[in-house]
Amino acid sequence: MDPSKQIRLGEIVLRLGGELIGDPDIAVRRIATLQSAVAGDISFLSQRRYRPLLDSTRASAVILQASERDATALPRIICDDPYAYYARLSALIHPAQTAAPGVHVTAVVGSGARIAPSASVGPHCAIGRGARLAQGVVLGPGCMIGDDCEIGDDSRLHASVTLYAGCRVGRRALIHSGAVIGADGFGLAMHEGRWIKIPQIGGVVIGDDVEIGANTTIDRGALDDTVIEDGVKLDNQIQVGHNVRIGAHTAMAGCVGIAGSARIGRYCTVGGGAVILGHLEIADHVNISAASLVTKSITAAGTYTGAYPLQPNRDWGRTAVLLRNLETLAGRLKELEKAIARLSGGE
Amino acid sequence: MDPSKQIRLGEIVLRLGGELIGDPDIAVRRIATLQSAVAGDISFLSQRRYRPLLDSTRASAVILQASERDATALPRIICDDPYAYYARLSALIHPAQTAAPGVHVTAVVGSGARIAPSASVGPHCAIGRGARLAQGVVLGPGCMIGDDCEIGDDSRLHASVTLYAGCRVGRRALIHSGAVIGADGFGLAMHEGRWIKIPQIGGVVIGDDVEIGANTTIDRGALDDTVIEDGVKLDNQIQVGHNVRIGAHTAMAGCVGIAGSARIGRYCTVGGGAVILGHLEIADHVNISAASLVTKSITAAGTYTGAYPLQPNRDWGRTAVLLRNLETLAGRLKELEKAIARLSGGE
Amino acid sequence: MDPSKQIRLGEIVLRLGGELIGDPDIAVRRIATLQSAVAGDISFLSQRRYRPLLDSTRASAVILQASERDATALPRIICDDPYAYYARLSALIHPAQTAAPGVHVTAVVGSGARIAPSASVGPHCAIGRGARLAQGVVLGPGCMIGDDCEIGDDSRLHASVTLYAGCRVGRRALIHSGAVIGADGFGLAMHEGRWIKIPQIGGVVIGDDVEIGANTTIDRGALDDTVIEDGVKLDNQIQVGHNVRIGAHTAMAGCVGIAGSARIGRYCTVGGGAVILGHLEIADHVNISAASLVTKSITAAGTYTGAYPLQPNRDWGRTAVLLRNLETLAGRLKELEKAIARLSGGE
Repeated sequence: MDPSKQIRLGEIVLRLGGELIGDPDIAVRRIATLQSAVAGDISFLSQRRYRPLLDSTRASAVILQASERDATALPRIICDDPYAYYARLSALIHPAQTAAPGVHVTAVVGSGARIAPSASVGPHCAIGRGARLAQGVVLGPGCMIGDDCEIGDDSRLHASVTLYAGCRVGRRALIHSGAVIGADGFGLAMHEGRWIKIPQIGGVVIGDDVEIGANTTIDRGALDDTVIEDGVKLDNQIQVGHNVRIGAHTAMAGCVGIAGSARIGRYCTVGGGAVILGHLEIADHVNISAASLVTKSITAAGTYTGAYPLQPNRDWGRTAVLLRNLETLAGRLKELEKAIARLSGGE
Repeated sequence: MDPSKQIRLGEIVLRLGGELIGDPDIAVRRIATLQSAVAGDISFLSQRRYRPLLDSTRASAVILQASERDATALPRIICDDPYAYYARLSALIHPAQTAAPGVHVTAVVGSGARIAPSASVGPHCAIGRGARLAQGVVLGPGCMIGDDCEIGDDSRLHASVTLYAGCRVGRRALIHSGAVIGADGFGLAMHEGRWIKIPQIGGVVIGDDVEIGANTTIDRGALDDTVIEDGVKLDNQIQVGHNVRIGAHTAMAGCVGIAGSARIGRYCTVGGGAVILGHLEIADHVNISAASLVTKSITAAGTYTGAYPLQPNRDWGRTAVLLRNLETLAGRLKELEKAIARLSGGE
Repeated sequence: MDPSKQIRLGEIVLRLGGELIGDPDIAVRRIATLQSAVAGDISFLSQRRYRPLLDSTRASAVILQASERDATALPRIICDDPYAYYARLSALIHPAQTAAPGVHVTAVVGSGARIAPSASVGPHCAIGRGARLAQGVVLGPGCMIGDDCEIGDDSRLHASVTLYAGCRVGRRALIHSGAVIGADGFGLAMHEGRWIKIPQIGGVVIGDDVEIGANTTIDRGALDDTVIEDGVKLDNQIQVGHNVRIGAHTAMAGCVGIAGSARIGRYCTVGGGAVILGHLEIADHVNISAASLVTKSITAAGTYTGAYPLQPNRDWGRTAVLLRNLETLAGRLKELEKAIARLSGGE
C-alpha cells in the first residue's frame, strides 16, 4: 500500500460529485467494508441491513445516500447511489495495473502479425499469423491467439485465454483466464447412424467494454457470427452457443448456458445457472432469475423465474410424488365439482 | 475466400446424391443462411418456419426436401434431409485446416515419447515421457500431454488441451481448448472427521470419431477406466465423473453434469444443463431434455423431462408457495371427498 | 506394475487396523473392484447391492464390514468402514507420484520469486514477481502463478492451473488442471446506462489439505478475501463467487455455483449442479441435494432438496401446465370448500 496514494475527501467530491459533510482535508487511502475498515479507510452503506455497522465502523469516512445523512457523525459523502459511487471511487483509487510494453522473449509470433509497440505480450503466448493487437493491449502469460484475430485498443486478456482463428474483440475488453472464444459451435446432423459434423465457419464478434469471466466459452457461428454487443458483462463459466447474439449492456452471472441462435436483448440480467434454449428471443430489459430455464421467447420486459423451491428432503419427497401425480389430483377435483353440482342441483 | 474453390451444382449432386433442378454448371463458393446469402452462395431450408425467406434470399441455389420442390424457382437440390445434406456439403466445401508436420521448437518432449513424422505439435506444448502421437495428429499451442498418453491417427487437439498421464484417445478425435481429460475423479471417504482421498488409478479411454467441447472435463476412473465410446459428441463445459461410460453416438449439449459410474446408452441425447446422478443406467435411444435431473435409471427409450416451467416472477412466487404446500392442498381435497361422501350418503 | 510392490495382508492390518481372517502372508499388489479383480488383487464390499459379486470375484482378499464376516471364505479384513479402509489402503499402495526438484529451463521466473530447492516447476510455467513456492511444491507444465502468490508445503498444481496475483494456497493442496484462482469477482454497478466495474482488490485464501477440481474457478474478493477453509474438497467446474467462505471439511460435487458473499458451514456436502445464491448463510452439517437451488439461509443441519422430478416428456407437459395454474386449482378447491360448507349447513 503506497502511503503517498492518499486522496482527500475534497478531491473525491470534486471528481465524482456528491455533497461532503466534514473536513475536505481528511485523506483516505483505501476502500473497505464497514466491518473491516480501519483508520484511513473510506467505507459505504448500500444496503439498509448493514446500517447498524455505522455505529461500530472504524472507517475515517463513509458514503451514504441522502436518507442516511444523519445516521452517523463521521465525515461523509452524500450521493444518490452509494454503491455506484463506491464503484467509481474504487476505480479512482485502484486503477488497473499497467504492464510493460513489449513482447516477451518466450512468446511465439506468427508471420504477418501486427502488434502495437505499446502492447504487452506475456511469456509463453502464441500469436497466430496475421493477428492484430492494437495499442495498449495486454496479454497475460500463456494466451493463445489464433490466426487473423483482432484485439482492440486497451483490451486486457489475463493468463491462459484462448482465441480461435478469426475472432474480433473490441476496445477495453477484459477477458479472464481460461476463457475460450471461438471454439466450434455444436453443429451435428445424424446421417446413416452417425453424427456428421457441420463445419463452423462463422466467427465471433465482441464489442467494446465487454468483460468475459474465467473459463467462459463463446462458440463461433456456424455460418454467420456469434455477436456480443458493447458493454456486455459475462461472469465465469458461462457457455454461449453458436450464433447467439447478446444485446448491449446485458449482464449474466456465473454458469449460465445459452443454446445456439438465441437472441438476448439489451439491458437484460440473467441469474447464475440459468439455461436459455436455442432459437428464441428475449426482449430488452428482461431479468431471468437464477437457475431458471427459458424454453420460449419472452416478449415483454420484466422478471421471470422458474426454479423449484427448496424443502427439507423428506418434505420434498412427498411434494415430488404429489407433483408427479398432479393430473390425478386435478381429476379428483373435477369429480368433486361434478358431485357438488349434482348435490346442489338436488337441493 | 479462394475464388478457384468454386464447386458446380452438378458435381455436388454427383458426390452427395439428391436431385438437381436447374443448370448443373452453376457454381457456388460458400454455404450461407437464406437470410445472409449473396450471389454465389448456396443455402438450405431445414425448418418450415424459415420458408418465407425462400422468396427474398439472394442465394444462387438452395437445398430443399421433396415437399418443397416447387416452393421456389431457384436452382435447387432435392433430398431427404436438407440439414444432413448441408452438413455433408459444408464438409466438402470447408475441409478442416491442415497443419504443417513437425514439432515446434518451443515444445518440450519427454524421453521415450514417439511422435509420428506427419504429426504437428504446436508452440509451448509439453509431451510427457512415453507418450505416443500417431500419424496426422495435430496439437495446437499449449497442449499438455501426460506421460504414456496415446493419441490415435488424425486426431486434433486445439490450443490448451490437457491430458493427464495414461489417457488413450482414438482416431479422428476433435478436442477443443481448455478440455481436461483424466483429472482425478472425486473419490473421498470420511474418516475420523477428515476426508481421505481415494487415489484415482483408473484411466480414460476415448473411442474413434469423438468430439469434446471447450472446457469439458472427463475424469479418470477410480479403479477401472472411464469410457467414451465411438462417435460420442460432447459440447462445451460438460463434466463427466469417474467410471462413467457413454455409449456410442450419444450427443450431449453444453453444461451437462454426469456423476460417477453412470452408464449412458447408445444414441442418446442429453439437453444442455441436465444433471445425471451416479451409479445409474440409461437405456439406448433415451433423450433427456435440457436442465432436467435424472435421479433413477431409465430402462425404456423415449424423451424424459423434469424442468420447472418459467413464469413471471410474481406468479412464480405464488405457485412456489402452493407447491411447497401441496401436501396440505391434497389433504384438503381428501377432506372434501369425505364430506361429499357423507353428504351423498345422506341424501 | 512393479512386482516388488506387493504388500502382505498381515502388514496391512498392522498399519491400518482391522481383523484379518486368513493367512497373513498372502500378498496383494493392487486394489480392484470385485468385478474386475484378478489373482493378486484385494477388493472391498462397501454397498450391499454388490454382495452377490463376492461369490464370483477372483480377488485374493476382500475388505468387509463385521456384518459380512461370513459372507465369503476368501481371506478377508474385517473393519468398521470398508470404503474408508479401501481409501487408506489405496493411498498406501498408490502413493502420489513424486516430481524431480528444480525449475524447468523453459519456465519464466519473475524477480524476487522464492522457490524452495525441493520444489518442482514444470515446462512453460510463469512465476510472478515475489511469488513464494514452499518446499515440496510441484507445478505441472503451463501453470501461471501471479505476482506475490504463496503456495504452501507439498502442494501440487497439475498442468495449466492459473493463480492471479496475491493468492495464498495452504499446505498439501491438490489443484487440478484448468482451475483459475483469483479472477475478478463479478462486481458491477449501473451508472448512467452503463455498467461500472468495481475493482476486485480482495484476495483468495485457501487453507491446508484442500482439493480443487479441474476447471473450477474461485474469484478473489471485492474488498475482503474469499476464504476456503482447511480440508475443503471441490470437484470440477465449480464456480465460487467473490467473498464466499466455505467452512472446513465441506465437500462439493461438480458444477456447483456459489454466488458472492455466501457463507457455507463446516462439514457440509453440496450435490452436483446445485446453485447457492449470494449473501446467505448455511449452517454446519447441511447437505444440499444435486441440482437444488438455495435461495435463503439454512439455519439447521439436515438434508435439503429442491429439484423437479423427471417424467416422460408427455406427462411432464401436462404436469407443467397444471403446476403453472396451481393457483387456479387452489381457487377451485376453495370454492368447493365453501359449497360444501353451504350444503352441510343447509342439511
